Amino acid sequence: MDHPENDAKYTGLRVNAGVTSNPTVNPYRKVVKKKRTLTPGEYVDGILKGDVSILGRAVTLIESTADTHQSIAQEVIEKCLPYSGNSRRIGITGVPGAGKSTSIDEFGTYVIRRGHKLAVLAIDPSSERTRGSILGDKTRMEKLSLEKDAFIRPSPSGGSLGGVARKTRETIVLCEAAGYDRIFVETVGVGQSETAVHSMVDFFLLIQVAGTGDELQGIKRGIMEMADGIAINKCDGDNVERCKLAAQQFRTALMLFPPTPSKWVPEVVTYSGYYGYDIDKVWDMIDRYFKYVEETGFFERKRNEQARYWMTETIEEQLRSRFYHTPGLKELLEQKELRVLNNEQSSFTAAKDILDYYFNSLRN
Amino acid sequence: MDHPENDAKYTGLRVNAGVTSNPTVNPYRKVVKKKRTLTPGEYVDGILKGDVSILGRAVTLIESTADTHQSIAQEVIEKCLPYSGNSRRIGITGVPGAGKSTSIDEFGTYVIRRGHKLAVLAIDPSSERTRGSILGDKTRMEKLSLEKDAFIRPSPSGGSLGGVARKTRETIVLCEAAGYDRIFVETVGVGQSETAVHSMVDFFLLIQVAGTGDELQGIKRGIMEMADGIAINKCDGDNVERCKLAAQQFRTALMLFPPTPSKWVPEVVTYSGYYGYDIDKVWDMIDRYFKYVEETGFFERKRNEQARYWMTETIEEQLRSRFYHTPGLKELLEQKELRVLNNEQSSFTAAKDILDYYFNSLRN
Repeated sequence: MDHPENDAKYTGLRVNAGVTSNPTVNPYRKVVKKKRTLTPGEYVDGILKGDVSILGRAVTLIESTADTHQSIAQEVIEKCLPYSGNSRRIGITGVPGAGKSTSIDEFGTYVIRRGHKLAVLAIDPSSERTRGSILGDKTRMEKLSLEKDAFIRPSPSGGSLGGVARKTRETIVLCEAAGYDRIFVETVGVGQSETAVHSMVDFFLLIQVAGTGDELQGIKRGIMEMADGIAINKCDGDNVERCKLAAQQFRTALMLFPPTPSKWVPEVVTYSGYYGYDIDKVWDMIDRYFKYVEETGFFERKRNEQARYWMTETIEEQLRSRFYHTPGLKELLEQKELRVLNNEQSSFTAAKDILDYYFNSLRN
Repeated sequence: MDHPENDAKYTGLRVNAGVTSNPTVNPYRKVVKKKRTLTPGEYVDGILKGDVSILGRAVTLIESTADTHQSIAQEVIEKCLPYSGNSRRIGITGVPGAGKSTSIDEFGTYVIRRGHKLAVLAIDPSSERTRGSILGDKTRMEKLSLEKDAFIRPSPSGGSLGGVARKTRETIVLCEAAGYDRIFVETVGVGQSETAVHSMVDFFLLIQVAGTGDELQGIKRGIMEMADGIAINKCDGDNVERCKLAAQQFRTALMLFPPTPSKWVPEVVTYSGYYGYDIDKVWDMIDRYFKYVEETGFFERKRNEQARYWMTETIEEQLRSRFYHTPGLKELLEQKELRVLNNEQSSFTAAKDILDYYFNSLRN
């Protein structure tokens, strides 16, 4: 699904020639014929028809850093926007070892059995395509990868968290336009990615395991207060009692938290991803949540807030990026930082000097 | 202590004349003789000698919006910087009704009895001087207001949270230079102010009361995970059992949290601010914390991180401020937001259009 597009400028129709006639090419090597670049309209038509191959190629354009690809991608996204939004977006996080892949495999199969089309996306800024994608990898989701109604896409690679998150968010638009009405966005649970995922999904599920502390070592502080639901995995065999106890502890802890913006009271359930026990309980919780937020109008309100958030976030990220990429600024910043740490200058006047340098450079 | 400085340009020496000779002035009105403006050197000398009146006037300069005052203030801060840092900075938060004022009165008296000089500052962006300051008001701290070793200052008023926070942070520098080796920074526990306070103190104390939920209604999500310690107030009379149970519940909840950056395990204690019970327990906890972070080197590391944070924060706040104050930008933003909410344009291209407008305006 990951055929790279031609690097050539977008010219509508273009066939790559000359590859097979090159005498230095190993004749036993499989010849990959590059696909012709489609027009934005062709991408949109394909996506709206639910053509998985064209959807995949459009996502590749979103992920590309080439300007020509980006401009096609933006046109395709814009044209797909009116057809997007009609889905339930569910963020799933948990520490490594909590069993996220197995769980998503089970959750996804459960959802597809109920007649839905599912897209599994991921955000992992640490992933690099060359080192193999860590999240959303099909080989980790054995059952789902055989389902024709599942579209699995690894985390976009490279770049800042903001960049990676934007690509995933744009991919959601295309998937929804292609008829996927359930979206999972997986994340690793150890970094800043959760905030990004939290601001593009409707429901945020935290997968936990029973234990007294060690299992939590990897998780970032603050995640628990973001969760709309906690699902405790590996509730099977002689681990059942421990899980029930952990569930009770999490419930007590959640009671001490201030109310969520939706006033929804986060629930705690137990299940076993490996044995497929109580998957329905997890999903009943999520269904209850959606029923609740649709009735209270919070669903729509949150979606609007998220759209505003991403516009503002993009603006502020660009403001920062333009600033930090000003020639000479990095050196000035380091020099000022040293003065601040040595109590030779206040944080405020140091910042002011740096800003003066920046705005002067913009004028020249 | 809050004598406003002259509005006139800084000229070293200047006496305000003519007020009493004005025939329209009510002769029964108390005539306030404006004090002459000091030189930055005189401010610094006074502060280093621990002159409370001069310290108060210097803080008034920090809080002033007049450019001339700001430039003197910055010079004074810069000269005081080498004498700052030698204190324990403690942030104190809690919902309205948790008994913050009474508690701070008791905590402060306890600290002063042990030979320390204490400054009580506050951050409350909602406060306005004209409506009466909400936090740090002396009348709320009956015992402390009689102590000569206590310097109590209400929250700076007006402006953004960033502005208010910066003023409080700069006031800390002057107080430390004046020999105050214990600094309390109080905040309301309902807004964004906690993050600001958290990034200027060494220890963050959350004051709670026993209860099953209603008492937490006002508190912002995420605060509990910021706390280095939780102190449950009103542990007296027939409320003792309830407080002990609450303490146990908070301890269980904290155990479920991921470790803090310092690896310090937040503690939970009970006390009564009103009756002055177990104030020493609260302070023993805080002493244990400081002993721990001084031994591990986290104290120094956090202070450095905070200095960097405030430089970066000032820069990014100014970048945002310059952007949002560009003429015509507000209208464009509203117009684009509408398009985004109606799915007519993506958050990303809308942001891009707005950024183009901004950077073009800077060039003209």
